[in-house]
Amino acid sequence: MAAEGFSREEREAVYRAIAERRDVRRGYLPEPLADVTLWRILEAAHCAPSVGLMQPWRFIVIRDREVRAAVHANFVRANEAAQQSYEGERAEQYSGLKLEGILEAPQNLCVVCDPSSIQGHRLGRHTMRETALYSAVCAVQNLWLAARAEGVGVGWVSILDPHVLQQTLQIPEGIVPVAYLCLGYVDRFAAEPELEKAGWERRTRLESVVSFERYDARWKVGERP
Amino acid sequence: MAAEGFSREEREAVYRAIAERRDVRRGYLPEPLADVTLWRILEAAHCAPSVGLMQPWRFIVIRDREVRAAVHANFVRANEAAQQSYEGERAEQYSGLKLEGILEAPQNLCVVCDPSSIQGHRLGRHTMRETALYSAVCAVQNLWLAARAEGVGVGWVSILDPHVLQQTLQIPEGIVPVAYLCLGYVDRFAAEPELEKAGWERRTRLESVVSFERYDARWKVGERP
Repeated sequence: MAAEGFSREEREAVYRAIAERRDVRRGYLPEPLADVTLWRILEAAHCAPSVGLMQPWRFIVIRDREVRAAVHANFVRANEAAQQSYEGERAEQYSGLKLEGILEAPQNLCVVCDPSSIQGHRLGRHTMRETALYSAVCAVQNLWLAARAEGVGVGWVSILDPHVLQQTLQIPEGIVPVAYLCLGYVDRFAAEPELEKAGWERRTRLESVVSFERYDARWKVGERP
Repeated sequence: MAAEGFSREEREAVYRAIAERRDVRRGYLPEPLADVTLWRILEAAHCAPSVGLMQPWRFIVIRDREVRAAVHANFVRANEAAQQSYEGERAEQYSGLKLEGILEAPQNLCVVCDPSSIQGHRLGRHTMRETALYSAVCAVQNLWLAARAEGVGVGWVSILDPHVLQQTLQIPEGIVPVAYLCLGYVDRFAAEPELEKAGWERRTRLESVVSFERYDARWKVGERP
């Protein structure tokens, strides 16, 4: 006798969060998140699976404008360097993209991971050590979906020099900054991904990324599926 | 004017999936997943965020018993080696844990990542290249939550030699096996994590892993928070 799934309405709500989640870079409102909302979405993150139940994530909530300004300066430098690597039309297109909301979003969140934590007693980490980091990523995705249900926008900023970020937030060596997120109420959630709308990249069909029994030999390394 | 969140019922459904998701290692039923259900949860995975919209994940669905038997043999070897690293009571406790359902679950799923894919035109990957792998992990977490809503159990097996897994599934060099999952209908979802019930590790309080403005100096690297 199989355990039951959720009711149709509940299932649809879960799929709605998954489908309507967006990486939000614009339209953040200045009001800070209500504390109760912030803690609810952090609790969702904390419910993530983790290898050996090690729960290696640590959450740094940033509201201070000076700290955010330092992170923003880090972004500006990293983004200028990235911009240089594109040429012609791509370079022009890149310069028109809005890629972060560090200062507009009244709170930022840095999710870091302690991959050497004794918690979990190394279970599951002997052959695939990266699973500690992956656990922290699962926490990010939980938070992202909970935030969508709360009407809270989340944007992941990866155009940062992680060493500089580490200094700014006084993160010691051995601790890995996994994700830097912008969080806040927003004026809207876009119907499609920002990068698709801007013509940077398009979504692929699911069928093209699924194979059976073994790796699909038609998937050439480095190429589109 | 802020964009609205979900209705209370919808929000609760999302939080329910997050709270009641479990890493399932036992109680898999022999019936294979209905195709429509399998494709729905794969679609949920495919909705994940990805750096530069690169969608670097590829999904290998495994139903063949011989392939699963080969992966299971890989697990047995890796698990024996892991077991050797524990001593005394811990070793005894470890040997009593059920850590995978590779043969019981009628389908397995290997999520792999092509971190060198040109898709996304390297946007967001200049300073934090690992975000390609993290995107594939976000896909895993989406799938895990959708599966919970469908009444489908998911278990992540990380006690595997990734190089051997790569050979078994004919995964070329340069492609990274990120997650090996067991999938199937189950007789029940446990109320608490398996490793907590077994006394291996306990869940920590959220407050102990949250800090403000900067890394909490009380979080000693490698130690419990």
